[in-house]
Amino acid sequence: MLRNDGRAPLELRPLTITLDTFGYAEGAALIEMGGTRVLCAASVEESVPGWLRGKQQGWVTGEYAMLPRATSTRTRRERNGASGRTQEIQRLIGRALRAAVDLQLLGERTITIDCDVLQADGGTRTASITGGYVALALALHRLGARGSLETNPLVTQVAALSAGYVGGVALLDLDYSEDSTAELDCNVVQTSAGGMVEVQCTAEGRAISRAELTALLDMVEGGIAQLLAAQRAVLASAGVHVL
Amino acid sequence: MLRNDGRAPLELRPLTITLDTFGYAEGAALIEMGGTRVLCAASVEESVPGWLRGKQQGWVTGEYAMLPRATSTRTRRERNGASGRTQEIQRLIGRALRAAVDLQLLGERTITIDCDVLQADGGTRTASITGGYVALALALHRLGARGSLETNPLVTQVAALSAGYVGGVALLDLDYSEDSTAELDCNVVQTSAGGMVEVQCTAEGRAISRAELTALLDMVEGGIAQLLAAQRAVLASAGVHVL
Amino acid sequence: MLRNDGRAPLELRPLTITLDTFGYAEGAALIEMGGTRVLCAASVEESVPGWLRGKQQGWVTGEYAMLPRATSTRTRRERNGASGRTQEIQRLIGRALRAAVDLQLLGERTITIDCDVLQADGGTRTASITGGYVALALALHRLGARGSLETNPLVTQVAALSAGYVGGVALLDLDYSEDSTAELDCNVVQTSAGGMVEVQCTAEGRAISRAELTALLDMVEGGIAQLLAAQRAVLASAGVHVL
Amino acid sequence: MLRNDGRAPLELRPLTITLDTFGYAEGAALIEMGGTRVLCAASVEESVPGWLRGKQQGWVTGEYAMLPRATSTRTRRERNGASGRTQEIQRLIGRALRAAVDLQLLGERTITIDCDVLQADGGTRTASITGGYVALALALHRLGARGSLETNPLVTQVAALSAGYVGGVALLDLDYSEDSTAELDCNVVQTSAGGMVEVQCTAEGRAISRAELTALLDMVEGGIAQLLAAQRAVLASAGVHVL
Amino acid sequence: MLRNDGRAPLELRPLTITLDTFGYAEGAALIEMGGTRVLCAASVEESVPGWLRGKQQGWVTGEYAMLPRATSTRTRRERNGASGRTQEIQRLIGRALRAAVDLQLLGERTITIDCDVLQADGGTRTASITGGYVALALALHRLGARGSLETNPLVTQVAALSAGYVGGVALLDLDYSEDSTAELDCNVVQTSAGGMVEVQCTAEGRAISRAELTALLDMVEGGIAQLLAAQRAVLASAGVHVL
Amino acid sequence: MLRNDGRAPLELRPLTITLDTFGYAEGAALIEMGGTRVLCAASVEESVPGWLRGKQQGWVTGEYAMLPRATSTRTRRERNGASGRTQEIQRLIGRALRAAVDLQLLGERTITIDCDVLQADGGTRTASITGGYVALALALHRLGARGSLETNPLVTQVAALSAGYVGGVALLDLDYSEDSTAELDCNVVQTSAGGMVEVQCTAEGRAISRAELTALLDMVEGGIAQLLAAQRAVLASAGVHVL
Repeated sequence: MLRNDGRAPLELRPLTITLDTFGYAEGAALIEMGGTRVLCAASVEESVPGWLRGKQQGWVTGEYAMLPRATSTRTRRERNGASGRTQEIQRLIGRALRAAVDLQLLGERTITIDCDVLQADGGTRTASITGGYVALALALHRLGARGSLETNPLVTQVAALSAGYVGGVALLDLDYSEDSTAELDCNVVQTSAGGMVEVQCTAEGRAISRAELTALLDMVEGGIAQLLAAQRAVLASAGVHVL
Repeated sequence: MLRNDGRAPLELRPLTITLDTFGYAEGAALIEMGGTRVLCAASVEESVPGWLRGKQQGWVTGEYAMLPRATSTRTRRERNGASGRTQEIQRLIGRALRAAVDLQLLGERTITIDCDVLQADGGTRTASITGGYVALALALHRLGARGSLETNPLVTQVAALSAGYVGGVALLDLDYSEDSTAELDCNVVQTSAGGMVEVQCTAEGRAISRAELTALLDMVEGGIAQLLAAQRAVLASAGVHVL
Repeated sequence: MLRNDGRAPLELRPLTITLDTFGYAEGAALIEMGGTRVLCAASVEESVPGWLRGKQQGWVTGEYAMLPRATSTRTRRERNGASGRTQEIQRLIGRALRAAVDLQLLGERTITIDCDVLQADGGTRTASITGGYVALALALHRLGARGSLETNPLVTQVAALSAGYVGGVALLDLDYSEDSTAELDCNVVQTSAGGMVEVQCTAEGRAISRAELTALLDMVEGGIAQLLAAQRAVLASAGVHVL
Repeated sequence: MLRNDGRAPLELRPLTITLDTFGYAEGAALIEMGGTRVLCAASVEESVPGWLRGKQQGWVTGEYAMLPRATSTRTRRERNGASGRTQEIQRLIGRALRAAVDLQLLGERTITIDCDVLQADGGTRTASITGGYVALALALHRLGARGSLETNPLVTQVAALSAGYVGGVALLDLDYSEDSTAELDCNVVQTSAGGMVEVQCTAEGRAISRAELTALLDMVEGGIAQLLAAQRAVLASAGVHVL
Repeated sequence: MLRNDGRAPLELRPLTITLDTFGYAEGAALIEMGGTRVLCAASVEESVPGWLRGKQQGWVTGEYAMLPRATSTRTRRERNGASGRTQEIQRLIGRALRAAVDLQLLGERTITIDCDVLQADGGTRTASITGGYVALALALHRLGARGSLETNPLVTQVAALSAGYVGGVALLDLDYSEDSTAELDCNVVQTSAGGMVEVQCTAEGRAISRAELTALLDMVEGGIAQLLAAQRAVLASAGVHVL
Repeated sequence: MLRNDGRAPLELRPLTITLDTFGYAEGAALIEMGGTRVLCAASVEESVPGWLRGKQQGWVTGEYAMLPRATSTRTRRERNGASGRTQEIQRLIGRALRAAVDLQLLGERTITIDCDVLQADGGTRTASITGGYVALALALHRLGARGSLETNPLVTQVAALSAGYVGGVALLDLDYSEDSTAELDCNVVQTSAGGMVEVQCTAEGRAISRAELTALLDMVEGGIAQLLAAQRAVLASAGVHVL
């Protein structure tokens, strides 16, 4: 079975990461995976939230939003509080990227990763994490370069990918049309050492067996390796070499 | 290594489910798992949300809240919008319980499962699902008994359990002190046929290998079997027999 | 005329107060008056609101909420601000319980009495005050026992009761069906010395004469004496002896 | 003991009611009682709130606000929801004025009485009711005059007054300095037939005996008779004769 | 062509400014321009907003609101946030009145000008500025009189006026009926030296040529001279002489 | 005097308009004027706001937002209501673009122009209007091409530009550093026929004479001619020819 866009089941969509395209962030990356395009911007602030004050550690957090016409019909701006979905994604992005950083080494600083979806074709939360890592690494590199950090607090690379069952077939990197008809949809965050920091799987329509889950996680592992390589390549092009 | 409360690693906390203790819901269950106590109430409404109108199907949704002193220090009431954590849990409860129901057979009705935590000692979201299923089954049984349903729309039992690694040891059914120091924390929702409908795992502090995840999911499967049996027993005592 | 539940006009509903049933509050009481059940929890915080800072006195305040299915049809959670009714009740609970306490002797502390209605069958605000007093007395006793208070700041007992005219007959302790058809509905808060700290009477449908009001207040006085005795009994069972 | 402004204990402050001073309401009255000045405006709308639709009756409701400099130091505008105090007062105004109207005779109409305090020196809620009645009577008279009402739905006059104990002395019509040091503060709403529709008494500092309450209510009755006469006089000057 | 109210095109509506009519503000002015009546109150606070702290200068800001029946049909109170229109007007009032004050000479103080529209017949924002200046000058004069200011920080008079094209004719001081059919509507703020501090022109229906704009600005200049004279006269009557 | 970026006083910043770069809008334009970059997206909806229903005309409205790192330090997302500044800009964009459209010819449709600022270096509101017009023209052209419109409702081109006095010198197209030190700042919206639809001038620090205003408006006219030419060129490249 060929997919909508002609991809094989285990094939990722074309991936491009471009550094510092728009705005004035300390580190920024525009990630494009097929039709999904997310602008990730890392902002450094020399203070921490109230509940962390005096604890001699920093904080990494995420925000997520979609432009109204990132989607095929217009989506309202979330001006009366973020929706449950948005908050869930923001919490995921924050947890995933904190796994990349030694918060003690970061010192009393907050890094906010803003992930603004310019175009949405499925997998926006995983793209936000994969691109957000690049923005974060760039910002930390520059912080080090100007002497504000003794040791780089980055401890690992982090990237994320979706996979799922559509019509009984296991597919990697679901686009919107696949995602909206998937029986099972998993989002996985992994480090460069192959460890998992998040696994979130949701079945719709039918429950999934342990064997099916295992097959999916195997597939994801291969895909994430490609994302990690792409992160390293684009960062290296800017003189940033990561673990 | 003995746990705080002397349990073995695979041992669940003492579990009690009591029907119809407080309030006037169509079906209600007070679930107590160790120090965690959640009042689950299923309310039937003869209409559906706007976006489902005319689609000849029903809806099942969840709400979640904690009394201020469910926790050891007082927690503010969420009167200016539910927090991200609360919304995330509500969305999980709703998805999990929808997996138990054939929404076409339910007809144009909404069932809201309110999960109010009277006392919180870890695992409140999984207890909400396990207890919420009982409230739901009770409400649907009574709806059938008064002639409002031709066929019972319940298609499977659903229960949920947590597990995680604490100090390198895999433990089932984490209490609050374990949960707050866990390296990995998973919440799993399964059906009576053994299929998984949700797997949510989050690592804190270190990433987790595939082998470790597999071990945890094995453990959870055994624990959920006990929860499903307890659900059947308490429902049978009220004359409700489920699949 | 017999009442719905067979009570005589001056008869109170069956009353039970149980200590420390749910949660981790410094003092908690579950009060049940007929079908009305309210969980009252007193939380001690070692600080005062901003406007009291440095004034060498404490504060006692109340919060009030209903679980969605405390009522016979589901009531929405107040997540976009408390309703006018809720705020009015909260203000009443706070004023009533402050009458029981010498705020100077309390010192720079805040005690919050959370009144969560698990089941509502009329008289929830008066039950909240009567039960809230017990939670408060328990918390203050324990604060004294652990050496945090030199002198117990409790200066009097406080209890509350409703009364009204239904179909021209004066009734004590209205249940929901009576309350919703009452011509006059009074809520009265009294101390153990018989003084009144709140009288709130509202006529619906017709105005009330001075003689009718006097008759009601006479009745209420007798009923509150029973509530005060029940408070003393349950507190004595926990070794707490009050004025 | 002479009062601040030289009044005797039972003496009301100078009272003026002026019709139609500002704005375009169907009926408006500016009431001035000493330093307290409230602009009351009655607006007629040819529809009812959703929950009354089809019930062949109307509705009367109140809104209350203070201009920021009605008070001696500036008070913030309530732009993020009305405060508990404001909502409590609004509910009181609405209930009090509904007592003056036969809602069936009103027909499917809503009358909103806006009470905007231009200057606040105690007793703003009672002045709002006394002035609000005049605005309401004027609006209903004009509605009748243009043929929109068969029978005038006004069934009684309604006026309100405060009284309290200050330094052990019973005083009528408290100004702000008296109100803020009162041991007991009552607000009473009465009809022209002498019946009470609201009694709200709150003790601060000490509880009050039944005898003290009786004395206060006697005093209030005399004061309200003067208010009712003033209402009749000003309305008669506009050709409006009320029951 | 005669206007609705018989005015010539360049004729202003009858103007009255009355000092200290209602409330307790440090300076207050009720401005009436035809049917438009705005109560302007200047409040002095001995502190500045957070972002100005320590900068040794003061702040002048404006708030604007309408009573619900200032308008011919009832307007809802803005209790869930000020509307875009209200915020736009508030920002304009603040900017306009800051032009009248040397903020360094004012010292670390905030003056808030509350403009509450009691009756609205067009031109409420310009009347708010013209009347707000009078309230401001009065408050600053009194601040000086009680020794709190070394040098009066008032540097110029400020007044505002509207003008527009209605049916092709240029008119000064539009009332509501004219404003709502105008092709071009300008609001201009000028100082006593003839300089402009705000020009806001909006075309509806057709664009306007440079010549038409010039003609309007010429007209406005003459009208504002009359407003400045009226401000000086009323302030002089209170012993306040301004530049 | 040379400007920061070496421009002459009357020189515009480099201008690029690119069509359909991101997202799925019916018409989209990315406008870049120096460091200011705004993504403008026109969304067509086949309905009108409630207050226009049945009036046989359409509506054009604007929304405006900035990505958090469009600015040199991070700006908070406006998730608790749009700020006054944002609302003011949105209202301006809406009015400006409605001047380009015959709302009767548009029919019962709403076109929303979303202007999301990716990078902010002054003049974001005028760039939003200039770019928003292109997005609007593109969307209307496509609506016509698929047969949904009989007559193109575009009646004129619309573009906007800022100008101001900085250090006594009149400059066109202010960047952020100029804008923040300007004595006078004007934003002007003009049509292709040279008529003005909005003039908004605000003085900071000193008032401005009529002669100075005239000089600025002359300058702006020349600049806007260049913007109108750029709009025509980019639209022509997509086969869209406008009036």
